[in-house]
Amino acid sequence: MTLADANDYCPGISLDCVIFGFHEGRLKVLLNKFSRYTKWMLPGGFIYKDEHVDAAATRTLVNRTGLSDVYLRQFYLFGDVNRTNMDENEDMLIRQGFSKDDEGVSKWFLQRFFSIGYYAFVEYGKVEAHSAMDEEVAWFGLDHIPPLYTDHNHIIDKAIATIRSQLNSIPIGYELLPEKFTLTQLRIIYETLLDTKLDRRNFQRKILSTGLVYKSDEVYKKWGQKSSALYSFDKDKYQDAIKNGISIF
Amino acid sequence: MTLADANDYCPGISLDCVIFGFHEGRLKVLLNKFSRYTKWMLPGGFIYKDEHVDAAATRTLVNRTGLSDVYLRQFYLFGDVNRTNMDENEDMLIRQGFSKDDEGVSKWFLQRFFSIGYYAFVEYGKVEAHSAMDEEVAWFGLDHIPPLYTDHNHIIDKAIATIRSQLNSIPIGYELLPEKFTLTQLRIIYETLLDTKLDRRNFQRKILSTGLVYKSDEVYKKWGQKSSALYSFDKDKYQDAIKNGISIF
Repeated sequence: MTLADANDYCPGISLDCVIFGFHEGRLKVLLNKFSRYTKWMLPGGFIYKDEHVDAAATRTLVNRTGLSDVYLRQFYLFGDVNRTNMDENEDMLIRQGFSKDDEGVSKWFLQRFFSIGYYAFVEYGKVEAHSAMDEEVAWFGLDHIPPLYTDHNHIIDKAIATIRSQLNSIPIGYELLPEKFTLTQLRIIYETLLDTKLDRRNFQRKILSTGLVYKSDEVYKKWGQKSSALYSFDKDKYQDAIKNGISIF
Repeated sequence: MTLADANDYCPGISLDCVIFGFHEGRLKVLLNKFSRYTKWMLPGGFIYKDEHVDAAATRTLVNRTGLSDVYLRQFYLFGDVNRTNMDENEDMLIRQGFSKDDEGVSKWFLQRFFSIGYYAFVEYGKVEAHSAMDEEVAWFGLDHIPPLYTDHNHIIDKAIATIRSQLNSIPIGYELLPEKFTLTQLRIIYETLLDTKLDRRNFQRKILSTGLVYKSDEVYKKWGQKSSALYSFDKDKYQDAIKNGISIF
């Protein structure tokens, strides 16, 4: 952001998106890194003065993934006194003309910052992660998140805790998996978010007893492995169940 | 707020608390009205520049209810472009020296405002609702909320929708009811939040089967009515159940 841009945004507030995808048997998060920073960060942005906060989150998501019709939810306002945008770019901003003593536009950018956290579930295969000249974009497995810019590790932890507490009322599997998937894939998603191993047969029995998934006539086969049945969600039943709360666990 | 005070707060953001209590068989919300306004509003406030946003919410709650150790949770950042603090007090603020053309402190107060919504459950009997010279405080049944200041009716609706979607993981009854209560009281709370009638016997059977409540040796008796058994929550079991999600509905 330049000093000229700063004037177009609501002061003192930003947004950060925790974008979840499922790939190669692992739950992953999309991160980006600007060439002028050493640390990776959550895709985020600012809110234009004439823009709804949710519209700003959608804009951020579209810019980074190419996807607009996505499950995207606010989950928390990060309001620690000591969180700022100042992790490592203070010198750079001051060189650009920002000043802490300025009473106007640039002051807020160098001071205390609120950030509103969003989480999103995307279908990994549909994402076109755009890397630009000065910005790298990449997926990181949840068990391989590096130390991030400011409090972004904490924002991811809080997103996972929030999702865990609402596991029965959000369409996690539906949004993360392709149309056809194995029950192992679905189980891994729940295992990762609950941070616990689930009994394979028990999970299978429970999921099938809900009637929310049905067996397709295709199978998944990896060379040298046993083939696995592929399942699909019953979309109508699933939407109803989410509304009333699925009871899987 | 005066112009002098404005300088102490984070610009462009406020907080509003939806405080729920249960009294005389009805779920109620605490509202306040300043003498210079015609409309009632949610108890709310601003965030000091050196204060965590959650601490600001606790301060607001203590000021209005006298209670500090209360179930209080952030639930949504209200970020509509057109929401301002300007419902009816613009003239008053301009008389006090606020100016839309001012580039400094007073400008943000007359422009676009974010508000972070909190909900709280309090035990009605413990609240000391403080009315001051210029501020009236009162409880309103959820079916008798008047048209409120700016978007505060919407904030209440959103709080209820959020609570409804998390009904199995928040300790509603535990926080709202006194130590001993009737199952009818507990049922009414769920009925109000779900906006539906629940079968009396079915509800009783389900609640008792969870083992979360136990019959006390006291009864509730109103003149001319049948006596009702009084129940209490098993605190340890209840806390565990909340963590893992109660499955009542």
